[in-house]
Amino acid sequence: MTAISPLAPKTPVSLPPLAGVRLTAYACGLRYQGRNDLMVAELAPGTAAAGVFTRSLTASAPVLWCRRALAESGRGRVLLVNSGNANAFTGRAGIASVRRTVDAAAELAGCPAEEVFVASTGTIGVPLEDGKITAILGDAFGKLSPGGWADAERAILTTDTFPKTATRTAVIDGVGVRLNGFCKGAGMIAPDMATMLAFVFTDAAVPAGVLQTLLAKGVERSFNSITVDSDTSTSDTLLLFATGKAGNRPIADAGDRGLADFRRQLDDLLLDLALQVVRDGEGASKFVRVNVSGAASKRAAKRIALAIANSPLVKTAVAGEDANWGRIVMAVGKAGEKADRDRLSVRIGGVQVADHGQVVAGYDEAPVTAHMKGTDIVFDVDVGVGRGKATVWTCDLTHAYIDINGSYRT
Amino acid sequence: MTAISPLAPKTPVSLPPLAGVRLTAYACGLRYQGRNDLMVAELAPGTAAAGVFTRSLTASAPVLWCRRALAESGRGRVLLVNSGNANAFTGRAGIASVRRTVDAAAELAGCPAEEVFVASTGTIGVPLEDGKITAILGDAFGKLSPGGWADAERAILTTDTFPKTATRTAVIDGVGVRLNGFCKGAGMIAPDMATMLAFVFTDAAVPAGVLQTLLAKGVERSFNSITVDSDTSTSDTLLLFATGKAGNRPIADAGDRGLADFRRQLDDLLLDLALQVVRDGEGASKFVRVNVSGAASKRAAKRIALAIANSPLVKTAVAGEDANWGRIVMAVGKAGEKADRDRLSVRIGGVQVADHGQVVAGYDEAPVTAHMKGTDIVFDVDVGVGRGKATVWTCDLTHAYIDINGSYRT
Repeated sequence: MTAISPLAPKTPVSLPPLAGVRLTAYACGLRYQGRNDLMVAELAPGTAAAGVFTRSLTASAPVLWCRRALAESGRGRVLLVNSGNANAFTGRAGIASVRRTVDAAAELAGCPAEEVFVASTGTIGVPLEDGKITAILGDAFGKLSPGGWADAERAILTTDTFPKTATRTAVIDGVGVRLNGFCKGAGMIAPDMATMLAFVFTDAAVPAGVLQTLLAKGVERSFNSITVDSDTSTSDTLLLFATGKAGNRPIADAGDRGLADFRRQLDDLLLDLALQVVRDGEGASKFVRVNVSGAASKRAAKRIALAIANSPLVKTAVAGEDANWGRIVMAVGKAGEKADRDRLSVRIGGVQVADHGQVVAGYDEAPVTAHMKGTDIVFDVDVGVGRGKATVWTCDLTHAYIDINGSYRT
Repeated sequence: MTAISPLAPKTPVSLPPLAGVRLTAYACGLRYQGRNDLMVAELAPGTAAAGVFTRSLTASAPVLWCRRALAESGRGRVLLVNSGNANAFTGRAGIASVRRTVDAAAELAGCPAEEVFVASTGTIGVPLEDGKITAILGDAFGKLSPGGWADAERAILTTDTFPKTATRTAVIDGVGVRLNGFCKGAGMIAPDMATMLAFVFTDAAVPAGVLQTLLAKGVERSFNSITVDSDTSTSDTLLLFATGKAGNRPIADAGDRGLADFRRQLDDLLLDLALQVVRDGEGASKFVRVNVSGAASKRAAKRIALAIANSPLVKTAVAGEDANWGRIVMAVGKAGEKADRDRLSVRIGGVQVADHGQVVAGYDEAPVTAHMKGTDIVFDVDVGVGRGKATVWTCDLTHAYIDINGSYRT
C-alpha cells in the first residue's frame, strides 16, 4: 500500500462483531507477497442474499457465477474474495476456476454450490491459480472468527491506500439490528455501478427479495453516483447478506413501515462507503461534489453531473486549483441534455461565478481561488430548464493517477 | 508555443496560393503577446460555403452565427478567426460582439453580413474585446495576399505545438483543381465533431449544397473518428469554401461522377488534418490507432473503438508502454455494444495477444512490449459478433496533459 490518500477519513472505523458472520483472511500468494490476498466469510445457515453487479457486457467469471447463484438460491453461506487477480478475460478456464473454488468451499461449509459467492479483483487477462486458494481453504475455515473483520477488509484491497468500512445500527419494530460494510476500489470507478467490490452484512431478518429491492434503490444515490475515471470494471460486485440473527419479526415486502429506519441506515452506509471510494480515487488530491439543478429531469441532471465529473479538463483544472468555470459549462454542453445557455448559473464553493450564461458583473475570483486550494470542492450548476436535481461525487485527475496506472502491472 | 510534439509530421507542408483566396494575420493583443492572434481570409465573390459544427448544446456565439450565415447565404466572402478568446459563455454580450465584428468586416468587403464567417478559440467565459479586432480590420484588409497562408495557419493556434496543414490536387472533368486546408486543435478533441477549428479552401466550382454533402460525409471518417480526451468544445468549426476559380464545368449534385477524384482528395485531406490534430494531442507521446471489427454494425464498431480510445486506463497504459490488453477488453465491455466474451480477439502491433476471450497459449509478451515502446501503436480488436468495422485514432494520456490543463489560464 502506498501513502494514505490525503482525503482519507480522519478516524478509521473498526467493525464490531455481527451475529451470524465469521471471517478470516489468508495469504495465498496469488500475486502479492507478504500480505493477505484472500478473505473468507462464513454466514449462518438461511442467510438471505442480494447483489448488484457491473453492467459491463464482458463481465468476469465470478460476476457471472454470482448472478447465477443469486437467481438460483437467494441464500449465502460462504463469501470468498481474492485480490491480485480479477479472473476476468480468462475465458472458459476462468469459469472452470470459479467452479473448482466454489465446489471446494461448498464441501467445507456443507452447503449447495449456489450458496457460495465469489469475487476477484486485480489484474485482468491472467488465469487465476485457483489451486492456491483451494489448497488452503480447509485451513482458512478453521480460523474463522467473529472478530475477523479487520483482516478481511484489508485482504481485498489492491491500489487502495486505506481500508473502507462503515457500520450502522437500526431498529426494526423495536428490535435493534446492525449493519457492517467494507469495500475496495480506487480506479475504474464509474457508474453503473461504481467499479469496486463492496460487501454489506446485517443481522436483520429480511428476505432476499426485499433485500434486493432495498439494495437496488440504495445503490442509485451512492455507488451509482460516484465516478473516478469513467472506466467500468468487469468485476463490480456489491453483495448484501442478512443473517436474520437479530430476531426481528419477519418482513414481507419492501414497503413495510417497520423497515423505514433500516432503509435509511442502509442507504447512509452505502453512501458512506461509496464516498470513501472517491476519497481514495487513484492519485486524488481533491474531493469534488457536483450538484446539478434546473435540469429537465432527475435523470438528465445526473447525466449532466456525470459529464462534469468525468471531464478530464474539469478534473485537471481542479488538480491545478484553477477556478476554470468555463470548462464546467463546456461539460454541460457535451452532456447531451437540455440546458439553457442564457440561464446557466454556476457557483463554486458557494460563490456565484456565472449567471445568465455569463460571468457575474464585478466577479471577484479571490474567494473562489481560495476555495479551490482546499481539499473539498463544491460545484453548483443550474441549467435553467426544469426541476431535475442530482449530485455526483468525484475526485481530481493528477500526475499520481498516471503514475499508478501507467505502471500497475510492473 | 512549447516544444514541438514528438509525433509531429517530419516535413511541414507549405500551402501554395489558391485562386480566389487572399489571407493575412494580425496581432490584436486579445490575450497573447508578441504573436498574431487574428487571421483574415478574403474569398472571391460567389464563393460557396459549407460547414460542420460542434454538437454541444451550449455552442459559442461564433458557432451560432456561422450556422445562421450558412443557412441564409450559403456563400462566403470573409473568414475571421481569432485565438486567445473563444467568445463562448459570454451570453448576449458575446452575440453582440460577433455582430459588431461581422458588420465591420462586411462593410470593408462590401458584402452582406451573412457572407462573413467567424470562429474564435481560446479561453471560455471571458468577454471578447471585439474593439481590438474592429480597430485593425481596415489595416488588415490592406495586407491581404495570396501568399498569406503561413501567417494565417499560425495565428489560429492555441496549445498546438505545430501548425497543421494539408494540400491536395484533384481533377474534375479534366480540369485541375486544388484544395488547401489548415486547422488547430490539441485538447478537447472528441467527436462529434473533433473539437477544433479547420478551414478548407478549394478553387473548384462546386455549389454550396453539394459541398455540404461532401463535407458531412468526409468528416465522419476523419474529424469524427479522432479523440484526445473525450471533451467536446463549444466552438468546433469546420468550414469549406469553394471559390470556383478553377473553371471546371458546373456540378449539379453530389453523386456526379466527375466529382469522384475531388471527393477522394477531399476525404484524404480531411483525414490528414484530423490525424495531425491527434499527433498534437495535449501532452501526447504516442499515436494510437484502434481498429475494431466483428461488431454488430459500423456504428457499434465505432462506439467500441471510441470506448477504447477514450478510456483513461487504456491511455495511461499506453503512456506507460504497458501491453495491458486486459484494459482494452474492459473498455469493450463498457461500450454498451454487443460483444462475445468468448470470441474476443486482440492484437497489439499485429501480434495476437488474446483469442477466444483469453490470452493465447504460450503468449510471448516481448514483441508486444517492443511495439509499445514505439510511437505509433496499433490495436486490432475483433468482438466476434458481426461484420461492423471502424477505426478511431487517439493519443496517450501523460503527465504533460495534466501540466498543460492544470494551468492553462495562468
